[in-house]
Amino acid sequence: MHNNGIYGEIKNFALATDLYQIVMAAAYYSSPYHRTRKTVGIFEMFVRKLPRNRSFIIAAGVEQVIQYVLNLHYDDDQITYLQSLEVLKDVKKEFFDYLRRFKFNGSLWSVPEGTILFPNEPIMRIEAPIIEAQLLETCILSITNFQSLIATKSARIVSAANRKPVVEFGSRRAHGPQAGVLAARGAFIGGCVGTSNTLAGKAFGIPVFGTMAHSFVLSHENELDAFREFNNMFPTGFLLVDTYDTLEAVTKLLGSGIRPYGVRLDSGDLYALSIETRKLLDNAGCKDTKIMVSGDLNEHSISKLLANGAPIDSFGVGTELSTSRDDPTMNGVYKLVAVKIRNPDKKNDEYEMMYKSKTSVGKETYPGPKQVGRFIENNVLKMDYLILEDEKPPDRCILLLRKYVDGGNVVLEMPSIFEIQNYTSKQLELLPTALKSLDVDPALFPVVLSQKLESLGYPRDPS
Amino acid sequence: MHNNGIYGEIKNFALATDLYQIVMAAAYYSSPYHRTRKTVGIFEMFVRKLPRNRSFIIAAGVEQVIQYVLNLHYDDDQITYLQSLEVLKDVKKEFFDYLRRFKFNGSLWSVPEGTILFPNEPIMRIEAPIIEAQLLETCILSITNFQSLIATKSARIVSAANRKPVVEFGSRRAHGPQAGVLAARGAFIGGCVGTSNTLAGKAFGIPVFGTMAHSFVLSHENELDAFREFNNMFPTGFLLVDTYDTLEAVTKLLGSGIRPYGVRLDSGDLYALSIETRKLLDNAGCKDTKIMVSGDLNEHSISKLLANGAPIDSFGVGTELSTSRDDPTMNGVYKLVAVKIRNPDKKNDEYEMMYKSKTSVGKETYPGPKQVGRFIENNVLKMDYLILEDEKPPDRCILLLRKYVDGGNVVLEMPSIFEIQNYTSKQLELLPTALKSLDVDPALFPVVLSQKLESLGYPRDPS
Repeated sequence: MHNNGIYGEIKNFALATDLYQIVMAAAYYSSPYHRTRKTVGIFEMFVRKLPRNRSFIIAAGVEQVIQYVLNLHYDDDQITYLQSLEVLKDVKKEFFDYLRRFKFNGSLWSVPEGTILFPNEPIMRIEAPIIEAQLLETCILSITNFQSLIATKSARIVSAANRKPVVEFGSRRAHGPQAGVLAARGAFIGGCVGTSNTLAGKAFGIPVFGTMAHSFVLSHENELDAFREFNNMFPTGFLLVDTYDTLEAVTKLLGSGIRPYGVRLDSGDLYALSIETRKLLDNAGCKDTKIMVSGDLNEHSISKLLANGAPIDSFGVGTELSTSRDDPTMNGVYKLVAVKIRNPDKKNDEYEMMYKSKTSVGKETYPGPKQVGRFIENNVLKMDYLILEDEKPPDRCILLLRKYVDGGNVVLEMPSIFEIQNYTSKQLELLPTALKSLDVDPALFPVVLSQKLESLGYPRDPS
Repeated sequence: MHNNGIYGEIKNFALATDLYQIVMAAAYYSSPYHRTRKTVGIFEMFVRKLPRNRSFIIAAGVEQVIQYVLNLHYDDDQITYLQSLEVLKDVKKEFFDYLRRFKFNGSLWSVPEGTILFPNEPIMRIEAPIIEAQLLETCILSITNFQSLIATKSARIVSAANRKPVVEFGSRRAHGPQAGVLAARGAFIGGCVGTSNTLAGKAFGIPVFGTMAHSFVLSHENELDAFREFNNMFPTGFLLVDTYDTLEAVTKLLGSGIRPYGVRLDSGDLYALSIETRKLLDNAGCKDTKIMVSGDLNEHSISKLLANGAPIDSFGVGTELSTSRDDPTMNGVYKLVAVKIRNPDKKNDEYEMMYKSKTSVGKETYPGPKQVGRFIENNVLKMDYLILEDEKPPDRCILLLRKYVDGGNVVLEMPSIFEIQNYTSKQLELLPTALKSLDVDPALFPVVLSQKLESLGYPRDPS
């Protein structure tokens, strides 16, 4: 058995990257063109298309990206592995020595976590020696794509729950243990009140919730013994009442004199069961007992339950939230938008900026380092302007991208997870009504290109 | 900024679990019922329903589960965090001392990795003191659900590719850095020839592939310079020809005298471009140059390209594979199927087995520790029998579950990743034709319950 699995042994995700990043790094390192020009790369991360059924995305994962960028380094055993690869066999030792010393020395701009964004708007921009910027691509994408995907899904579900609390319960269906932790963070940013994931609580300070599973009930000789024992020990816990027959369980429970803090329904017709359970509780004088429901819920089923008047106090949402089941992909990309090159004919380190863009059909990118100007009127998002960084923004616009890292050092304090959640919530309140809909055919928000950006178009290969 | 993110700082995923596992563990620990009976829990992991469009699943992640189970422990700072939680504030110190000493002492049965399975068939069974077995639930599920999901998706894509190699390229869209690594492993088990994920190569010995991205082309002043430089350094690399205009790029490339080992098309009409590219290559005498295509491919688009005769030599598949986009969830569950309890009235440690099962509508479970008997005839899977572990299997059946861990020790060697892939491939060949279809309305495979299991039905709460 390999002793190198996912538990404990993988302590450093430096190699959790596409091999071509390292191959290209080796090529940049050896390139006469880039060596003489000391090429600086400017990359932007953005989405081309929204996930299905979405009218916006919520940018998330910025804090983890910055941690990743500032901590990226290559251990000896990682370098030994790279040197063992056939494709790198002719790469000079100097390149591996460079990797051994690697430290990010560049700059990073980002929108604040929790910012609502639209297609083609940069979430982040990296400016660094081209090798450094290139090596970051895969992890920046996987971190930001995933947390943003879940924050966006969470906002939809929380919106459907109409101010009733939603707790994220999806770790068992998330894409591996780490995905569960990151999903919890994204879900909290999108508006969930907490998570069942304990590590997310420890790592990020997110409130954690958890009481009982069916196995606890099953492990006892009868249901009531299990309830009694659990309630004695955890008097503010939720008792799970659907192991055998929900209404029988509630009846027995109340007949025994227990006045539960809360009950959880996890199967069956949640609408009918919540109504009957509420009646049983109220008739037994347990008017304060909360009803939580869970079980394959999503924004649509929650919306329907509440529209029909189901007396539910809170929701636990797992699978559909932590996998963003209706579309599990955010197609964020990380594209070179400019290089700064030193003029090899001049003696001093004078750099020239050259804009870059892909013109592949359907995958075109806008050239140049950009900024987003956001125009808000009467507390409603009206319009965004995609402009070049050095352009004067239209009047009364807020500029979204801020510099968080300069020359490899953090220069802007990160907000707390609660501040991020609060900021997200305020952002969501600014959305035009049409963009708040949970419909499958979402409205498009106007993102206007500056005249200069429009005029640049997509330059073709200059050769 | 919290210094506890995903990069490096999270070295131990012990707390990447639902808090209720720990709450229940505390309740079991303090329970007079369980203390006197020294309750042993028997849990099984299985799926109730297949992911959408699937006619089977491929069990994967077994090796990582075993690593997780055998290494699970709780560090002091994790225990300090747990003690800080409101819900656990009245839990006695002895419980946390127990966690500090925690070590898995139980047994684990599993089907071999790569086994094809159907609904209700156990993937794994755990038998251990009930606290130990309970604490494993969340991570066992997240590890197994995800890798099995991806192995299954991979098998579909590889089948569509009809013996042309498929490389997994999805790390940037996987659900975080660790998900990218685990997706690569699942994809390899399902039949991909390798991955772009370097850490998956290092950790699991999977072949890694990687050459160039658009940024490398863009970083140069013209496309041809980039090709020339790259090809000099990596003569067996694939040149990415779609940064500006694919056919122009191929024409320029061949005109320059470079005889590329391979080219990759990543956008546009892949069918038409592959045909035109092949013509250009052949006309220039580059009959051996390979054409690889990538770009939002899945089993359906690959199938269509090949059915139409596109001259493609290999495929790179990312997003759709590493998120299992058409259904990103495998609903595996981990359910208590029996307890063994010591008779408190007897002096010796005589244990009695009690079967357990949920009867919640739509979420019923079959009681008792089970085994799967598989009947294969003329190299075709004919029928599976779901039987109780202690029943005599029908004649000529292969029993699928094997004991990998006994009393906390590994007792069965794990196969290599290549052996797993090979076994999976042989399993897939055994599938009846109807189950090989990629259609959205898959055939159902017959899984027959033993008479004894059938007669047990779903026992109700005995109280």
